[in-house]
Amino acid sequence: MEMEKKLKELKEHISTYPDFPTPGIVFRDMFSLLRNPAAFKDLRDVMVEVTKRNIPDAQAVVGLESRGFLFGSVLAIELGIPFIPIRKPGKLPGELNSVTYQLEYGTDKFEIQKESVQPGLKVLLVDDLLATGGSLKAGCQLIEESGGEVAGCLVIMELLELRGRDKISQPVFSLLEF
Amino acid sequence: MEMEKKLKELKEHISTYPDFPTPGIVFRDMFSLLRNPAAFKDLRDVMVEVTKRNIPDAQAVVGLESRGFLFGSVLAIELGIPFIPIRKPGKLPGELNSVTYQLEYGTDKFEIQKESVQPGLKVLLVDDLLATGGSLKAGCQLIEESGGEVAGCLVIMELLELRGRDKISQPVFSLLEF
Repeated sequence: MEMEKKLKELKEHISTYPDFPTPGIVFRDMFSLLRNPAAFKDLRDVMVEVTKRNIPDAQAVVGLESRGFLFGSVLAIELGIPFIPIRKPGKLPGELNSVTYQLEYGTDKFEIQKESVQPGLKVLLVDDLLATGGSLKAGCQLIEESGGEVAGCLVIMELLELRGRDKISQPVFSLLEF
Repeated sequence: MEMEKKLKELKEHISTYPDFPTPGIVFRDMFSLLRNPAAFKDLRDVMVEVTKRNIPDAQAVVGLESRGFLFGSVLAIELGIPFIPIRKPGKLPGELNSVTYQLEYGTDKFEIQKESVQPGLKVLLVDDLLATGGSLKAGCQLIEESGGEVAGCLVIMELLELRGRDKISQPVFSLLEF
């Protein structure tokens, strides 16, 4: 109950921009929420509660560059477990694993540091948004190809009509549905 | 004393990669620190203490995409003040201010949402690294051109020999010096 009330309030802090980045797209901007300190704190508390309730065995938080960094870092500190980044190409040093994934036009690539994923590591994958599901799916694939196990995915916002969730075989938890 | 000891320990968690991203460059990787939950928590506590001591009048945290997001979000929540992003072009919706700045080869651009900076807002600008100072300087410029005031800059690591600090007229606080 308490949680439902908080989520309803949090949703009101998300701004809407029609026709961004392209005509016909309705952009949900969560930076308006982050400008409200009480709302950001509530969001953190909800992230922690949802994780503890649903993915209690998570041993590390993986955040997708770059908005997943905002929430992944906060969550990792609160849970007291490692934070591991997945980044765009060319930005991480050391030995890497990578995955190439499809965009609307062309492809993109994610990288992770090999040393950051011990075999069997149970990972919570965090991003801001679940839309078509392409980047979240690629993130899951990269973690598993690196020897880890995706215990679950946590996203702040989910755009239900795009059915991105259908692409992901791992458990997905979203906080704010649009 | 306590602080000095913590900083010394934190520095030991930074990994070093020679010849990344190009030959002759020594890359300091702070993601090794973020993989250690106790170290990341200590880093957060140090960021909070340094801010409270030196920039007590900060009214908002601005984080530079994308590694500034990792620390800016954590710090904003702890201080109980708004988090505001500065992003690469094309990613923020709404009315924007922008600044173009020089890279080693070519130029790059930063953007900020106009509505996020009220006139006279005292801002703490956060990034992971002070190297040549180009991006931090551009961030300061963008905040001030948007009507805000840079009360101070906080970076996790500073590469002293590049003297990036000389480019910045606002107070700069760095935690780990190399």
